Amino acid sequence: MDKCIRVGFLGCGNVGSGVWRLLNGFSPEIAHRTGLRFEVKRILVRDLHKPRDIAFPEGLLTDRVEDVLDDEEISIVLEFLGGEEPAYRWVLAALQRGKTVVTANKVAFALHWHELQKAAKQSGAGLYYEAAVCAAIPIIHSLEESLQANRISRIYGIVNGTTNYILSRMSREGSSYEAVLEEAQRLGLAEPDPASDVEGLDAAYKLSILASLAFHGRVPFENVYVEGITRVQSEDIRCGQELGYTLKLLAIAKREGLDVETRVHPTFIRNDHPLANVSGAFNAVFLTGHACGEMMFMGRGAGDLPTASAIVSDLVRAASAQKHMYPTFENELYPTVALRNNTDWRCAFYVRMLALDEPGVLSRIAQTFANHGVSISAMQQKGETSNGRATVVFITHIASEKDMQKAAQEIDPAIATVECLLRVEKT
Amino acid sequence: MDKCIRVGFLGCGNVGSGVWRLLNGFSPEIAHRTGLRFEVKRILVRDLHKPRDIAFPEGLLTDRVEDVLDDEEISIVLEFLGGEEPAYRWVLAALQRGKTVVTANKVAFALHWHELQKAAKQSGAGLYYEAAVCAAIPIIHSLEESLQANRISRIYGIVNGTTNYILSRMSREGSSYEAVLEEAQRLGLAEPDPASDVEGLDAAYKLSILASLAFHGRVPFENVYVEGITRVQSEDIRCGQELGYTLKLLAIAKREGLDVETRVHPTFIRNDHPLANVSGAFNAVFLTGHACGEMMFMGRGAGDLPTASAIVSDLVRAASAQKHMYPTFENELYPTVALRNNTDWRCAFYVRMLALDEPGVLSRIAQTFANHGVSISAMQQKGETSNGRATVVFITHIASEKDMQKAAQEIDPAIATVECLLRVEKT
Repeated sequence: MDKCIRVGFLGCGNVGSGVWRLLNGFSPEIAHRTGLRFEVKRILVRDLHKPRDIAFPEGLLTDRVEDVLDDEEISIVLEFLGGEEPAYRWVLAALQRGKTVVTANKVAFALHWHELQKAAKQSGAGLYYEAAVCAAIPIIHSLEESLQANRISRIYGIVNGTTNYILSRMSREGSSYEAVLEEAQRLGLAEPDPASDVEGLDAAYKLSILASLAFHGRVPFENVYVEGITRVQSEDIRCGQELGYTLKLLAIAKREGLDVETRVHPTFIRNDHPLANVSGAFNAVFLTGHACGEMMFMGRGAGDLPTASAIVSDLVRAASAQKHMYPTFENELYPTVALRNNTDWRCAFYVRMLALDEPGVLSRIAQTFANHGVSISAMQQKGETSNGRATVVFITHIASEKDMQKAAQEIDPAIATVECLLRVEKT
Repeated sequence: MDKCIRVGFLGCGNVGSGVWRLLNGFSPEIAHRTGLRFEVKRILVRDLHKPRDIAFPEGLLTDRVEDVLDDEEISIVLEFLGGEEPAYRWVLAALQRGKTVVTANKVAFALHWHELQKAAKQSGAGLYYEAAVCAAIPIIHSLEESLQANRISRIYGIVNGTTNYILSRMSREGSSYEAVLEEAQRLGLAEPDPASDVEGLDAAYKLSILASLAFHGRVPFENVYVEGITRVQSEDIRCGQELGYTLKLLAIAKREGLDVETRVHPTFIRNDHPLANVSGAFNAVFLTGHACGEMMFMGRGAGDLPTASAIVSDLVRAASAQKHMYPTFENELYPTVALRNNTDWRCAFYVRMLALDEPGVLSRIAQTFANHGVSISAMQQKGETSNGRATVVFITHIASEKDMQKAAQEIDPAIATVECLLRVEKT
């Protein structure tokens, strides 16, 4: 006889509908494999009368959150609301009532992990969040369990499908950011208000979660440096390609000793790096551990069924657990290993300038770089000169972010202007 | 106060030494994160007097297996012997005594999974085997847990580093199989007796494990069709490249309904397929699930520390488990879903022939193909003719394996001889 677990949904948009369909179409297999049967008892929606693709049984939908939170038969709550509030408040309330929560909400989770985990531990409830980062890709669980024997030193993630789609198309077609964004919106691949994706915030929430797990120390969202793709020009993508680099919006986390850097920004990586070939709406996480070496996970990081794949796996895991596990954060347990937030990271740089096409100019630019410890690894002067100025592209050796910024500011505008400054990971 | 878990090693070669080093160098972190402390109590070795890199404490090494199996303090046994016997007998004995086993042994595990799991369930011991397939890559655990809400229909794996290294170098340099193998042996990247790798057996053991987990039904090693890389010629790698394909030793498993095909053989895949860029000693598993879509895991599939990464993660998992879990095999539980072994799979083919350079010959070849339902998708005649014969390369559309074999046999040797027949996955 299968054990029946009653669950409640908070929200039923794309992801919630995907979970409903996956649970319903897949229940015989789940029962065969696990001896568990899931019954969706209540689904909280904003508008009871909105037309829906799925014909839910009478009485399943409700617009009162209490119908989910106060139902004692519901032992597991699946949260698909997205955004900070009211999701955070309701998830917290569910955990406090001893209900296990499976969430796909990176925002509420990244901002309130501490409080949520504390509430879960106190009531003995479980807190599962695989779907919050990269949907179907099992990166959360791998960091928590399968890679736990590693000191992870680096993460490079393509964790936002919208921006990866836009940059992939700009790279392939040479189109402008605005044109590709518009088409992505038309195709439903970018939100009507794309700010959270294109400004890099979505990636930063995910990076804060990944880095916290990888480094076993809490890395707050506020510590993540964020720069989006809205100012990326196809000219720079092309110049980078000519020098052997591909532009990606990377979520980067590095740890050395107790110093941690976390940053999301457009980044050039070598064309032959495995991440360079991760195109379109795919996500990927590339990491380095002291035992496992280099490893990459690639898959669909968004979409109803890929997200549902992670949700339902978490649900089965939650329902099968004898005792729920929670990650430990060494910097909370042991003040001596408190992680430090390093904002002066080191990387290489791509600099595009409009420089006077006169003898001695390049040497003065190189000297200004050198004064700040930045040395040049490659230089290319592009075709034609206009108004006496030519486009010159530099790739530097590895240097400090602050030194590079100072050097860029000190370039004399009378001889050259910095038109674009992008970071390069040469690894 | 940390909980102390006493473990015993069976074997202490490369992998065992890696586990010893990882456990010792990493124990403060493990204790911080998990509250567990591991003490290696006994290590079974063949020769007590062999010089070793590691200075093991007095009395730790033994050449009597009973010192591990009969020690009641040892609750977890780590097995690094490799090969079927005596590993199988000893692992079985450990499980029967209620000791949890963590193994890196794909051979004993693939051949005796059923008996081992039965013994484990009977005594309540755990059986962990992440390290048996692709070392550090968490593919086992992902199939068992993170992808359990999926009907997986396809697996393509590069699961043997030695053959991937050889084929990568043959592709890059145009060298012969023999020359690259010899150098790989000199560099320690291929065994002195490389048969198990280059004949595809190592990959077949791993595929049998992967397919069983992915399809939730036991897929015996004996069902895997195996063809190694010993007859691969650099000429064919080059011809394939010109047509847009890369040659890999792929471990392929597909399920459609109850029909399962499992095969290991040199396979052409599109140059832009993510697996085509997995070079050298890296391993990767590419899979498709009905919910997660396409996904790829890439990493180091061999080596002391990458294997130890999986072993120690399994060890922590085993020691933290309230209750050990075992995969279920639907074809054992439910005779109605018994999987069928399909040996007449469908794929595309690469055929290189030496054909009479005369009018009408190509049309006769194409007609013989067509008589068996094989149609041609691309054809290339290579440069010069010798002895009145020219090299002609065909890529077919998707056809049945048996039909293709019949067609190849029916080509009249008076007009053309089949010099090479390789499979192509166009996906």
